Amino acid sequence: MTRQTIDRIHRFIADRDWEQFHTPANLAKSISIEANELLECFQWDGEHFDREHVAEELADVIVYCRNMLDRLGLDEDEIVNRKMDQNERKYPVEKARGRSEKYDKLI
Amino acid sequence: MTRQTIDRIHRFIADRDWEQFHTPANLAKSISIEANELLECFQWDGEHFDREHVAEELADVIVYCRNMLDRLGLDEDEIVNRKMDQNERKYPVEKARGRSEKYDKLI
Amino acid sequence: MTRQTIDRIHRFIADRDWEQFHTPANLAKSISIEANELLECFQWDGEHFDREHVAEELADVIVYCRNMLDRLGLDEDEIVNRKMDQNERKYPVEKARGRSEKYDKLI
Amino acid sequence: MTRQTIDRIHRFIADRDWEQFHTPANLAKSISIEANELLECFQWDGEHFDREHVAEELADVIVYCRNMLDRLGLDEDEIVNRKMDQNERKYPVEKARGRSEKYDKLI
Repeated sequence: MTRQTIDRIHRFIADRDWEQFHTPANLAKSISIEANELLECFQWDGEHFDREHVAEELADVIVYCRNMLDRLGLDEDEIVNRKMDQNERKYPVEKARGRSEKYDKLI
Repeated sequence: MTRQTIDRIHRFIADRDWEQFHTPANLAKSISIEANELLECFQWDGEHFDREHVAEELADVIVYCRNMLDRLGLDEDEIVNRKMDQNERKYPVEKARGRSEKYDKLI
Repeated sequence: MTRQTIDRIHRFIADRDWEQFHTPANLAKSISIEANELLECFQWDGEHFDREHVAEELADVIVYCRNMLDRLGLDEDEIVNRKMDQNERKYPVEKARGRSEKYDKLI
Repeated sequence: MTRQTIDRIHRFIADRDWEQFHTPANLAKSISIEANELLECFQWDGEHFDREHVAEELADVIVYCRNMLDRLGLDEDEIVNRKMDQNERKYPVEKARGRSEKYDKLI
């Protein structure tokens, strides 16, 4: 996301005095709620879906994730890279290739 | 997110041959599942939480969102800005300031 | 569910002094969290699943729904029948047969 | 839930030929989606909520849980009691009283 877009989201909230509602707990609820509006695009049929609608719902999830990063003063790049360090350790290529099991089920 | 981090996520999936599992429907489920691991950080107490743990779970949501963008060939900045256009129209500052109601409840 | 099972769930909470955590908002979070542990049984494969595991996670959702009913003093049979009245009106057999669209998309 | 209500839900689905959509995976998605419409009642305010609306959304979750029980041929009372056996073992009264930690954090 560009700096400009990040600022736009930030300003959108500030202009409306919505920081008061954006507690981390409320944002966590919001991310789950939007994630399920996204899931609803695939509720009865996983194959055929409305790409435009999916894009919209995905954008909602992403915007709330951005709000959460802002609220907690977290750097997206840093927390994602820290998580990828873990993922790479937990799922070594030779064990995980072509398999969808959770890491504690891989042998 | 930097280009480098985006590439790292992409490579993580490609190296493990996991594109086969990453259908849009499966990614939508995954985003919801991770969003709820994030929500679990606030299950019984919305005030006190483990910031480190929250950062980890948030990173999981963000990584799956990135996988979904990749899978559908969507540009994050574009879909977010399109959504913000809508949000700004639906929530005019003068009506929405300091209020948490949904746009169709605002008068 | 038998009266005996309902009482068992109720006593389980009372014996542990957990009513204090069981606000309606916390129970709503809990239902979503458990629903997503259920969803995880189908994360990468909707066809093959562990029926025993599914039963366990479904039971968790049901127990929290029961806690919510208790907390709000709602009668399960009554609220379900009221909802079924609505569903039957919104999805008339002749329009809805064999179709998975939402009621506002049915013509 | 009375036998009559269970039959009503069953007939509602059968009359509309909807068993074809009610795979366990689709029902799991549906439970999560409805759980999040319930959660939405508490999105910005955990204290004040519309009890009638909450009852409606809770009923939706319960109806899909019933559909899942039916689809998998599971007995609600049996799976709930089996889960309560586990819960009682994992959360002994003396350790868990007045505490909201997960069982693996209780000492």
